Amino acid sequence: MDIEEFRKAGYDAIDRICEYYYSLREYPVVPQVQPGFLKKALPNTAPGAGEPWSNIVDDYTKLILPGLLHFQHPLNFSYFPIQSTFAGTLGDLLAGSAPTPSLSWFVGPASTELENVVMDWAAKMLGLDRVFHVESNIGGGVIQTSASESMLVSVVAARTRYLLAHPMTPIESLLIYVTSQTHSCGRKAGLVLGLNVRVLDVDEPTRVGGGLDAETLRVALDEDHAAGLAPFVLITTVGTTTSGAVDNVADVGALLKTSYPDVWMHVDAAWAGVVLACPEYRERAQLAGINAYADSFCTNFHKWGLVNFECSALWVRDRQRLIEALEYTPPYLRTKQGDAGDTVEYRNWHLGLCRRFRSLKMWFVLRSYGLNGFQGYIRNCIAMNHMFAKQVCATPSFELVSPPSFALTVFRIVPRAGAPNGTANKLNRVFYDALLARSSEVLLTQTELGGVFCVRFCVGSSRTTPADVEDAWNIVCEVGETVRARFGKGLPN
Amino acid sequence: MDIEEFRKAGYDAIDRICEYYYSLREYPVVPQVQPGFLKKALPNTAPGAGEPWSNIVDDYTKLILPGLLHFQHPLNFSYFPIQSTFAGTLGDLLAGSAPTPSLSWFVGPASTELENVVMDWAAKMLGLDRVFHVESNIGGGVIQTSASESMLVSVVAARTRYLLAHPMTPIESLLIYVTSQTHSCGRKAGLVLGLNVRVLDVDEPTRVGGGLDAETLRVALDEDHAAGLAPFVLITTVGTTTSGAVDNVADVGALLKTSYPDVWMHVDAAWAGVVLACPEYRERAQLAGINAYADSFCTNFHKWGLVNFECSALWVRDRQRLIEALEYTPPYLRTKQGDAGDTVEYRNWHLGLCRRFRSLKMWFVLRSYGLNGFQGYIRNCIAMNHMFAKQVCATPSFELVSPPSFALTVFRIVPRAGAPNGTANKLNRVFYDALLARSSEVLLTQTELGGVFCVRFCVGSSRTTPADVEDAWNIVCEVGETVRARFGKGLPN
Repeated sequence: MDIEEFRKAGYDAIDRICEYYYSLREYPVVPQVQPGFLKKALPNTAPGAGEPWSNIVDDYTKLILPGLLHFQHPLNFSYFPIQSTFAGTLGDLLAGSAPTPSLSWFVGPASTELENVVMDWAAKMLGLDRVFHVESNIGGGVIQTSASESMLVSVVAARTRYLLAHPMTPIESLLIYVTSQTHSCGRKAGLVLGLNVRVLDVDEPTRVGGGLDAETLRVALDEDHAAGLAPFVLITTVGTTTSGAVDNVADVGALLKTSYPDVWMHVDAAWAGVVLACPEYRERAQLAGINAYADSFCTNFHKWGLVNFECSALWVRDRQRLIEALEYTPPYLRTKQGDAGDTVEYRNWHLGLCRRFRSLKMWFVLRSYGLNGFQGYIRNCIAMNHMFAKQVCATPSFELVSPPSFALTVFRIVPRAGAPNGTANKLNRVFYDALLARSSEVLLTQTELGGVFCVRFCVGSSRTTPADVEDAWNIVCEVGETVRARFGKGLPN
Repeated sequence: MDIEEFRKAGYDAIDRICEYYYSLREYPVVPQVQPGFLKKALPNTAPGAGEPWSNIVDDYTKLILPGLLHFQHPLNFSYFPIQSTFAGTLGDLLAGSAPTPSLSWFVGPASTELENVVMDWAAKMLGLDRVFHVESNIGGGVIQTSASESMLVSVVAARTRYLLAHPMTPIESLLIYVTSQTHSCGRKAGLVLGLNVRVLDVDEPTRVGGGLDAETLRVALDEDHAAGLAPFVLITTVGTTTSGAVDNVADVGALLKTSYPDVWMHVDAAWAGVVLACPEYRERAQLAGINAYADSFCTNFHKWGLVNFECSALWVRDRQRLIEALEYTPPYLRTKQGDAGDTVEYRNWHLGLCRRFRSLKMWFVLRSYGLNGFQGYIRNCIAMNHMFAKQVCATPSFELVSPPSFALTVFRIVPRAGAPNGTANKLNRVFYDALLARSSEVLLTQTELGGVFCVRFCVGSSRTTPADVEDAWNIVCEVGETVRARFGKGLPN
């Protein structure tokens, strides 16, 4: 493909994207396909000779697009959002057209410095303390691919810091603390690093929605220390996946600082961290606790922050803790500027070596929306979620399982009075399966909270309107009625 | 930005990319900027109100592009290549416009199956045994972000397999084996996982360019076993970063199989693995050894394989070893298809959870180039490197430091006869610094091989022509002459 052929193919690709967004509402939210559908449609070896571009891209439109779950669909209320904004798309396009692996300042002067600048913009927008800004020269921000990677990097830095202070600690006694609502990547960090994980239960029925408190943490820490174990990192969450719960970061942080200062506190706000851009949510989202005590803080701009996937923002209080954990520089990576130490060498701030130029799309989004536009979008999502939650509360056959949190509502069908939880779960599984049967129209996801099976509704697509929330609610009601009617007054046992 | 504004901005972005490639030769290969240049040019907070798109994108052209090291520049012979082809760029654009996090088949049916299909296409193109194909249902292929991540995943799977077989092994006794030419990500895997690394020396002057042999490995294994240590993974390399050396995968694999079957063999062919697409290089690149013995094999299509960054292809002999090491499925990630076990759930094949739709660009590239086009590009790069290496050999003031390998030549200025190595290194450092002073015209990188400071020349940009190699050689000669003249006949001490 020469440059002029690319121009033609590029315009055509842009047109296809426009067409996709014009027709997005006509796509089923979830493709109604069966395993093997695509494999059957494709040859089983690469072609010997190159194919004309139009054949290739037509196959994209014909075979691939109809086989995707459409996260941008206005009636997608599943999981957490995954972003694709036009500004972000253009940032990714340009970054990919002149790629820099940005392993050092020398290899990517502009990409390195733009990441410095944009992460400082974001830190200020969220109200993070100056110590977290790159310009403080103490801590700083770095873009990772995912909250999993951000967490893994933080746990590695925490482990290195702990073992430097306590070099005789047997690895087998190290403990990662998570809660029963920590995202699965907490347990996965334990798997990857071969470290033990202790799960602190925050799901007892009396406290659902409350998150981790200092007393629960203190009991566990005292117990493990008495047993000769070495908890070295605590993963707290602002806005858990299961219920949107918020750990009491301020209280648990204060406890760690006073009694267990060697324990690193990572704050995983992968989904909800972006609400800090709105001053009215800063108290609920624990900004003061984060600023006072977090060793690391993560929020995914690719989730609810309008930046295209992948863009996980990680800030650390002390960049040296990352560097001492992750730096290894062979001769072929040495540069004058790196040796002089007056540049950020991002390869020492993440797991790999080379990295895509992700700050460009973040810069485009923050400039294109501005702080006002960004706040407006967040507030709008929260308002639409409150609409939905109000409907749940106003309808006797449904109930909230935990308090609505930002743009997330967790609810279920009300079981018969006095029905055991097993029966209620069975009813709600049938309800969710029936909802899934309507997944071409609307998508919500399932979860469990303290043994209670329930359904999650999360607003996040930038194309969702109040009318879409209304439509979703109507389908939920319709399905709920059908399921209740099917089981009659008795409900299943 | 609404859909029509996006169409306009999209066409404009495509035009800017065309303009970039038309004018690429006019850009300095390395931007002549100083640390802080971009920070100074940008405001230190995000704007309150959104800005017009044209301002934003003009800043990209004015401030960012001139601050990048241009990996696509025809006179970039540094490091290893980083790709951006037009087909790959369009794949990335479309994938980003309808993003799927592909954490399960349910969330990305088309993206999951396309990855299955394309990784099988690539496996067949490279001649990998059927056991590595997804369609074997035994092993399979998965796209990671980087060779670092591919290696990390492999080491994690190796450690899990070893500890399941030997559960009483103290973590402190586990050993990762790398060689003195293994890429830095081998040592970094040790840092990240908190495991000890033993470096097998393959750089003694008598064997430079030879790579790891079975005898060196046997001695180390016997020694460590006698000392009660537990080597559990060996990282071999086909085409090292330092010199392009190729480990004797067949011999070391046979040794492991007979005497140390619990040791996992990972083959890192991040750069050179793509040569397997050409049958005439399969023997040199150890295909038979890989097929007989490798537990995992990685090659980066984003390096020398025409696919846009990031696209690291990893194949494993037994997918269960990945899954047993990496699977943790909370209720909110369960799906009917995943529970049934008849789909590939890629979240259990890599470190994170969500993942970009990277197979689309790989599909576009393989179809657009075809096997013939792909082979032609590889052969062309190798031919151009041989041109350069021949010039080195034919010029008395230069010498090869190791045999040219595929598209890589490692060379230096010939020191005075009988000069100690320190003097030769000093001379060559001055030479490389002088070459760097011409980095707006051409870029090569430095390295060290068994204590010998030398210069690397690697062909890989799809825009490089024989005339560019000629130009590069002329600059190298000119700089070499100047440096030699400056030091007179005596050369520095």
